[in-house]
Amino acid sequence: MTAVPAFLVAAEIHLKPGALDPQGQAVGAGLRALGHTEVEDVRVGKHVRLRVRAADADAARAAGERMCRQLLANPVLETYAVEVRPAPDGPADDGTGPP
Amino acid sequence: MTAVPAFLVAAEIHLKPGALDPQGQAVGAGLRALGHTEVEDVRVGKHVRLRVRAADADAARAAGERMCRQLLANPVLETYAVEVRPAPDGPADDGTGPP
Repeated sequence: MTAVPAFLVAAEIHLKPGALDPQGQAVGAGLRALGHTEVEDVRVGKHVRLRVRAADADAARAAGERMCRQLLANPVLETYAVEVRPAPDGPADDGTGPP
Repeated sequence: MTAVPAFLVAAEIHLKPGALDPQGQAVGAGLRALGHTEVEDVRVGKHVRLRVRAADADAARAAGERMCRQLLANPVLETYAVEVRPAPDGPADDGTGPP
């Protein structure tokens, strides 16, 4: 038990729009082979969920953006977007879907 | 030019809460080694952005969920969540951040 509240920080990390995404191309080819001809373009990125202690949501967001710059994303090739919400009790993956 | 509108479908795919996530543990250890002692738990998943032609948003969502079940996610080990929004002109990764 602690006085510092917990937040769920979600970081979405994708290759920059101009960067070639071979994994996305492969997934797109696989989907079209399965009959999903409605698919025009696919990009595959990472989604990182973190459970973080922080004074408030702004501090949690700042921590998440720092972590993206330092470790989670490659700033030369990738873009990232961070979302924050208050954490329920439990681990980062609480099974309730995306923050 | 076509009469069928385009949608951006985003699929977030994570290991189920009970499943061991070694990649998340490694990322958590890396973040703590960098001084991020505020991090309590990390889960690493996939984030797939698709540009899809569909009659309406409900059809686009249904297609996205079908693609998750058929190819994008492993339903035994993983959960998925699909979000849909109207697509601007351009590829699935339009550089404007998460749908």
